[in-house]
Amino acid sequence: MITIYSEDHRLRAAKTELSDGQLVTPFECPERMDMILDSLKSRGFGDIRPPKAHGLGPAARVHDAGYLRFLETVWTEWEAGGRAGEAMAYTWPMRRMTDRPPEAIEGRIGYYSLSADTAISAGTWEAAQASADVALTAGALVADGAPAAFALCRPPGHHAARDLFGGYCFLNNAAIAAQAARDAGAECVAILDVDFHHGNGTQDIFYDRGDVFFASLHGNPRDTFPYFLGYADETGAGAGEGTNLNLPMSPGTPWVEWSAALETALAAIDTFGPDLLVVSFGADTFEDDPISFFKLTSDDYTRLGARLAAARRPTLIVMEGGYAVGDLGTNTVNLLEGFDAGS
Amino acid sequence: MITIYSEDHRLRAAKTELSDGQLVTPFECPERMDMILDSLKSRGFGDIRPPKAHGLGPAARVHDAGYLRFLETVWTEWEAGGRAGEAMAYTWPMRRMTDRPPEAIEGRIGYYSLSADTAISAGTWEAAQASADVALTAGALVADGAPAAFALCRPPGHHAARDLFGGYCFLNNAAIAAQAARDAGAECVAILDVDFHHGNGTQDIFYDRGDVFFASLHGNPRDTFPYFLGYADETGAGAGEGTNLNLPMSPGTPWVEWSAALETALAAIDTFGPDLLVVSFGADTFEDDPISFFKLTSDDYTRLGARLAAARRPTLIVMEGGYAVGDLGTNTVNLLEGFDAGS
Repeated sequence: MITIYSEDHRLRAAKTELSDGQLVTPFECPERMDMILDSLKSRGFGDIRPPKAHGLGPAARVHDAGYLRFLETVWTEWEAGGRAGEAMAYTWPMRRMTDRPPEAIEGRIGYYSLSADTAISAGTWEAAQASADVALTAGALVADGAPAAFALCRPPGHHAARDLFGGYCFLNNAAIAAQAARDAGAECVAILDVDFHHGNGTQDIFYDRGDVFFASLHGNPRDTFPYFLGYADETGAGAGEGTNLNLPMSPGTPWVEWSAALETALAAIDTFGPDLLVVSFGADTFEDDPISFFKLTSDDYTRLGARLAAARRPTLIVMEGGYAVGDLGTNTVNLLEGFDAGS
Repeated sequence: MITIYSEDHRLRAAKTELSDGQLVTPFECPERMDMILDSLKSRGFGDIRPPKAHGLGPAARVHDAGYLRFLETVWTEWEAGGRAGEAMAYTWPMRRMTDRPPEAIEGRIGYYSLSADTAISAGTWEAAQASADVALTAGALVADGAPAAFALCRPPGHHAARDLFGGYCFLNNAAIAAQAARDAGAECVAILDVDFHHGNGTQDIFYDRGDVFFASLHGNPRDTFPYFLGYADETGAGAGEGTNLNLPMSPGTPWVEWSAALETALAAIDTFGPDLLVVSFGADTFEDDPISFFKLTSDDYTRLGARLAAARRPTLIVMEGGYAVGDLGTNTVNLLEGFDAGS
């Protein structure tokens, strides 16, 4: 399997994350990619290619124009104020408040974010664009006939909604690639999100559309981030009614239970019959992940890869989360190896 | 004028505030009260009395029951998780998300907050209750015939909405006292908010009610906290249509312009004809306030006090913000002195 990857991810190098009332070194860090690259190269997945630049057009197909302008200028505006810290939201438009983006950047950053964990610093925007290019370039490989491709994206994307960043995500790489496939002629696309966290951004983008099916296996939002989306009763709206499938699970969930939910999701996707399967893959379902609570083992990723291959659909695998850095390379390449062996 | 004050405010002693992407010592600090107490005692306002305990009944008249339960248990729940930092929200229910309070405290604290600036620590809940008691006890003095009384509240209250804390506020002291006056027989009450920041919580609580008039002079929300409420076109809803008056102003606003807005607010209040005037007083309109942008001088507070007295209404003055700690005593007692001289 070919991997698409950009060194520009290193431009995303925020130093602070708000976690448990403290500012800590971000869990989502550049070293994650180093571990994956090492495993790719040492285990026979050395065909790693750079992305092609696609500009902002594809992102603008799924994100709000004002949001993209905000992402483009937020760091410059923040820095111009002479602030000591990285750009971080601290207040939000809550219940019964107005829906106007303020002029002051301290307010506007809250308007366009869903969490305070994700600080913006110099280079974040450039890295986010490169990450979307990675997904688009890998998607083009599949459109051109490859049975599968691996988009080694960083920063991740699945928490980024139409007009919200947060959860380490800025541009929704999987959604952008899915939309690009639609625009290139695919009649319908399914996105299967197997990151530990609910893909709230992807759900948000396609919630009222019948042409993109979204299924997600994740920690129950009553117990974990993103807390406010990902319940089982969110089934889509309007033309999208019935095309959103959430499978939330409880702390301690092991492979036997998790893989049963996977079967449910894959059966629904098979019924939907997509021309393309986009897999939002996070390795934070791993038993030793520092911020998650599922109990998958390294061998389970091999099984997952084989099962995805057995779906027999053109498949784009897009990297999302995974914070047990020491095991991230092994687990990710286990998935790819399982996929190739099952193809 | 009699002051009601509780030493229990010292239980509110959070060590961290998220500001400009850093964790700093909170601007809203116990020393604020020491400065005001010193000035009160040295300038002939030595009649300072403790509050009577009122229990949670009066607060429950304006706040959501689930919110009050949350405030009561949040610190215990947070601490039980063994977290290193103070209790601070980091993610919120944003646009197009669900409206369910999560079970996990890291999510529930976001559900019930409007900002990440306001950390909760041991004693916060006890101090907030004492602060509401201060407002209620001072309100009872006015109900019993005093022409005016000063509720030296800390923590402040006007950002606390029906079910949201933030902006250093937990229980809305002014709203609780206004409601108590209504419940004790006042036919209608006006709340005049002259803190630098918009009193979003007070507006929220009374927005659809015709029996409580709310007028606020404040920094334009497009430029400053709370950013998402306080625009001039928010005029009330339903039975409250026409009983909400926002007078937002721009950076650099001096007394001459500010006092013209004050006349507009007082004229509207006079037309409304309340039995009680509650003044949410913040001294953060001061020219040297570190987090605000109006340009009132110390002498202007004397003028403000005299003008409020000239309204000839039974008046409850409730302390809100003010962060130029060194000048806070002078400016606050100037207001009281001006009021007494004008009575």
